[in-house]
Amino acid sequence: MTTLTNRPADPAELVLEQHRAFRDELLAARLLLSTGIDGLYLRSDRFERIVRGIDAMVSRAGAGTAEETLHFPLLMPREVLERTNYPRSFPNLTGVVSGFSDPTADHAALVQAFDSDDRASWTNLLRPSDLALCSAACHPLYPTQQGTLPAEGRVVEVFGQCFRREPSIDPARMQSFRQHEFVYLGNAEGARAHRDAWIGRALELHGRLGLSVEAVNANDPFFGRTGRLLAASQLSNSLKIEVVAPIAAPSAPTAITSANLHLEHFGEEFGIHTATGQVAHTACVGFGVERIALALLRRHGLDLTGWDPQIRQELAL
Amino acid sequence: MTTLTNRPADPAELVLEQHRAFRDELLAARLLLSTGIDGLYLRSDRFERIVRGIDAMVSRAGAGTAEETLHFPLLMPREVLERTNYPRSFPNLTGVVSGFSDPTADHAALVQAFDSDDRASWTNLLRPSDLALCSAACHPLYPTQQGTLPAEGRVVEVFGQCFRREPSIDPARMQSFRQHEFVYLGNAEGARAHRDAWIGRALELHGRLGLSVEAVNANDPFFGRTGRLLAASQLSNSLKIEVVAPIAAPSAPTAITSANLHLEHFGEEFGIHTATGQVAHTACVGFGVERIALALLRRHGLDLTGWDPQIRQELAL
Repeated sequence: MTTLTNRPADPAELVLEQHRAFRDELLAARLLLSTGIDGLYLRSDRFERIVRGIDAMVSRAGAGTAEETLHFPLLMPREVLERTNYPRSFPNLTGVVSGFSDPTADHAALVQAFDSDDRASWTNLLRPSDLALCSAACHPLYPTQQGTLPAEGRVVEVFGQCFRREPSIDPARMQSFRQHEFVYLGNAEGARAHRDAWIGRALELHGRLGLSVEAVNANDPFFGRTGRLLAASQLSNSLKIEVVAPIAAPSAPTAITSANLHLEHFGEEFGIHTATGQVAHTACVGFGVERIALALLRRHGLDLTGWDPQIRQELAL
Repeated sequence: MTTLTNRPADPAELVLEQHRAFRDELLAARLLLSTGIDGLYLRSDRFERIVRGIDAMVSRAGAGTAEETLHFPLLMPREVLERTNYPRSFPNLTGVVSGFSDPTADHAALVQAFDSDDRASWTNLLRPSDLALCSAACHPLYPTQQGTLPAEGRVVEVFGQCFRREPSIDPARMQSFRQHEFVYLGNAEGARAHRDAWIGRALELHGRLGLSVEAVNANDPFFGRTGRLLAASQLSNSLKIEVVAPIAAPSAPTAITSANLHLEHFGEEFGIHTATGQVAHTACVGFGVERIALALLRRHGLDLTGWDPQIRQELAL
């Protein structure tokens, strides 16, 4: 007997098809709404309720550890982007806000462009401003931490927003998304202890939500030839541990949480020192709340009312 | 007897001084944290708890009226910005995301710029993308509403995020902020009824929070000479009603909520029709949640624990 199937033989094509199929399901269920641009969605209240439940769980997991809890906008000073060296390492993902440098001078030209056959030509008048899209949830934190840390170091809880310019049909790869972080600033041992403790907490938390997760050694998608060396060094020094879960494509699990050692990278650039005068080490754990929500929707189904009552209770759904 | 005073005689200077003084107080109390850029702040958890309380009150005020509740990111397709005509009317406030059109080709030049004495020159390589900063909370909604509305029209609750490029030392004038909206789509009478009902609800809600508010006829800050005509027409047709409250400067109250008739502006451009085949009218009420939080902090003090227990209860503080 011959079985007819539409499944493509190429594994990469299969993954693409699974991404598209899951996105189509999410849009059909109106959990996310299309804006017409890949990776940019309007979010339903049902989706946001899952995110709020995850955020509350993450806060509970870190309760009592943070000196301060902060909420960041999607924008930050362009200077911070430059000081983190982000555009050099991730030019393809970088975003800067452009506007008119002199609206009065430019307005006539803008009106002319708008009224012409080539309306999009108005964007030729735009110039980069002093604002950038936030490249990683914790980046706006470091300039506020300049100076000397307390003897025991410091933990800050951050509700951050991030931008990555990487249009994708994978619904888990959004261009605008949130990360809920716990950032440590202090010495090298403290940084490692923070990171390792959070890997344990993250595995436990995701497990309680019924997700099949595993912690893997990982690297950031550094750009270009130099980038490959940076990625290799990050990997061989185990600086980045990702908690991955299957979302749309079972064969290609996605990072839903990551825990990172930054060594002295931010301490050096932003003048952060330990109580004993050393350049501070930093470490962070970041929960990708949209990705966790999507992993849950994939695992437990798009109808929230059908989820295991214990998981609904965890998330206050 | 001569009284020495530092108060400037010029009323505009006095207002500036009051803006600066209130901002300094907010930063000193760490309710907001400076990013070094006027109008862009990191927010404390205390500030966010006030915002969450306001959001919940606004949702309760509109409970049962909305067909759907949606949450928008700060970004939207640049095409939506163009279709609303926003850059023509508000070029000075407009923001577009720029990035690299060809990261591989640009990367060497970027690295060179980064390593040069003029690091900022890397931004010369940036080009406007297909993403814009959201110009008004309800703008991303309209493309999703194309087609025919139900007979009774439709109300959508929107948690929106907005960008306005207007750096200011007035803490109530943020470049990145949120608006909680109830948007009506339907016929002209329905739009007016929605708008008028919400002015009443808004006055009542703000009054319950102990704010001295009043509803005033207002206009948007349309740009340039043509803009003055648009503003005059908006005023004379009473299309925009603002609920204003004193925040930093008692003599210059700030709009904290606004209720607007858009006539057929969005219905026409985005192909939205009533059940009887007419071009839809739209109307919205937008609660400026950060501004309301600031008005409360100004009115009741920076120490939330000292607020009237009834107001704390309203806001679940």
